[in-house]
Amino acid sequence: MGLPTAAYAAQYESAPLTPWQIERRDPGPEDVLIDILYCGVCHTDIHFVRGEWGSSIFPMVPGHEIVGRVSRVGSRVDRFAVGDAVGVGVFVDSCRHCSACESGEEQYCLNGATFTYNSELKDGRGVTYGGYSKQITTDQNYVVRIPESLPLDAAAPLLCAGITTYSPLRHFGVEPGMKVGVVGLGGLGHMGVKFARALGAHVTVISHTESKRDGAKALGADDFLATTDHASFEDNAGRFDFLLDTVSADHNLSDYLGLLRLDGRMVLVGLPGDLPVAAFALVGKRLSLSGSMIGGIRETQEMLDFCGEHGIVSDIELIPISAIDEAYERMMRSDVKYRFVIDMSSLN
Amino acid sequence: MGLPTAAYAAQYESAPLTPWQIERRDPGPEDVLIDILYCGVCHTDIHFVRGEWGSSIFPMVPGHEIVGRVSRVGSRVDRFAVGDAVGVGVFVDSCRHCSACESGEEQYCLNGATFTYNSELKDGRGVTYGGYSKQITTDQNYVVRIPESLPLDAAAPLLCAGITTYSPLRHFGVEPGMKVGVVGLGGLGHMGVKFARALGAHVTVISHTESKRDGAKALGADDFLATTDHASFEDNAGRFDFLLDTVSADHNLSDYLGLLRLDGRMVLVGLPGDLPVAAFALVGKRLSLSGSMIGGIRETQEMLDFCGEHGIVSDIELIPISAIDEAYERMMRSDVKYRFVIDMSSLN
Repeated sequence: MGLPTAAYAAQYESAPLTPWQIERRDPGPEDVLIDILYCGVCHTDIHFVRGEWGSSIFPMVPGHEIVGRVSRVGSRVDRFAVGDAVGVGVFVDSCRHCSACESGEEQYCLNGATFTYNSELKDGRGVTYGGYSKQITTDQNYVVRIPESLPLDAAAPLLCAGITTYSPLRHFGVEPGMKVGVVGLGGLGHMGVKFARALGAHVTVISHTESKRDGAKALGADDFLATTDHASFEDNAGRFDFLLDTVSADHNLSDYLGLLRLDGRMVLVGLPGDLPVAAFALVGKRLSLSGSMIGGIRETQEMLDFCGEHGIVSDIELIPISAIDEAYERMMRSDVKYRFVIDMSSLN
Repeated sequence: MGLPTAAYAAQYESAPLTPWQIERRDPGPEDVLIDILYCGVCHTDIHFVRGEWGSSIFPMVPGHEIVGRVSRVGSRVDRFAVGDAVGVGVFVDSCRHCSACESGEEQYCLNGATFTYNSELKDGRGVTYGGYSKQITTDQNYVVRIPESLPLDAAAPLLCAGITTYSPLRHFGVEPGMKVGVVGLGGLGHMGVKFARALGAHVTVISHTESKRDGAKALGADDFLATTDHASFEDNAGRFDFLLDTVSADHNLSDYLGLLRLDGRMVLVGLPGDLPVAAFALVGKRLSLSGSMIGGIRETQEMLDFCGEHGIVSDIELIPISAIDEAYERMMRSDVKYRFVIDMSSLN
């Protein structure tokens, strides 16, 4: 049976993305069928298409920043109605009974969440396909509502870049007046600046080049710190309460830890490889280095509602799906302010 | 004027320790003069004598686990009387007005605490000399009381090894029933086991060799985990709430982080050099990697009172000061259960 659906796929590792047809399942009792209007382009998409994390399954339809409208609902769906603006983020299912799932932290499902693409389906029926496509069938418990006040295209990146930065700021207790540094100013970093500001923090963008200064100010950052000259680390020692590190490239964490005050915390949300940490840096000021990964469904909805109240969306560049390979190339050069979003009306 | 005092010193980097005479200051109004009875031998002593941390000043009189009795008090001393059993730990002064000092966390003094040895005196009168000596003059605000119920020799290591392990267990909220792993079973680790047990945790000693199993059980550990076979890291993934890492040698932190459950924490109290950390390890389970350094005066007194109530002291091997070089050699081979303490009556 199934619903024939136009998509864009990488047919093999590092392949260009090309038109492909997939099948979505007919909505079951708990499912909603969503007409996808927009899909954000995340760095993760590039990692997976290029097989950089060693777990890629081809053909692959990337995309986990999905926004659209409900076009059909299953018989037991009570949370959504046809026409609702909704989103699907990084995962579409989880075990639902482990301690993480029961506490609403499905992203940390102890039995492994089912990710929106490149994930084996639990029933062995194949793999998941993501948002570079015209529609998707998703269990209502893994769908979130997009506030109608938000532009749907610029809301798409909230589903990954948004929740990835919102969650650690809330979970680790960023409060009004705290000195927050956002390390790196890309898709994640620019959302971090917006959220930290909305939470009342004093926000400094920390970048290794001066080139991001104007962008930081335009986003509402209170201050900017370039670390081009290594002495700037010493000159700003102990200045921050909290650092949100969005950088995925290699960097020396001890340098950044030195910017924190006593009892400060640095949270990694990017996924670089092994990074060196000097015990002295942590021990000398009782610092904490933490990690955080997206957020649960409940917190993602909370984040979207927060965005609705504060008028927060991503700064985006809208592209047709035919430009996706070029977009990947530009992302590798950090040549985007700050997130590409695919206009899915370009796919037919 | 000053008080001529017998001591043992390293006259130059990596020199054997030999008899030397120092002068202690006459007690000022806030000072107590202490007859030193016992001094614990800390790994830090070896690092400094061997110049391994690049900040050694010679001649050097090491020792910062000092226990003795008050022999004279200054005119304004109100906290101690002649004959009191007292201790001096890792620092003997601090700026007293920074936010760390004001909150009783003098060990993190923003202007730099004055350490018990190898530290420049604030008034430029020279450097501090430690506890490998017959007496010491110390400001009463940097002296702690030893409960009379404790044997004074075995209490000496509480001043560094004790507070170093007690403080993070308390500060980071170890509670009854928590699964705590103590990584490494030396001077620090064996105190960590005793404190974690007394706090009601389920305690597992984690060591890279089976050779520590019997010792762990003898100390009251509930369980033992040897990581000789690397597969034991995977077999025990997610098992612990909290890890106290006392290891000063190089080790891969990501391996140990994998032993933690969601939202778990690992605290470093040793001082190895740069250690690799994989962002994935932290991000995937929202873990925190923290550091902790000794404790403040208030917390050190709290720890000593806790030891008095629970009958906790260090397991020691009492040595004459003439055996100090041999003790260093044995410590380098981890051949001590678990702390050497110098009997200062052997120094004349």
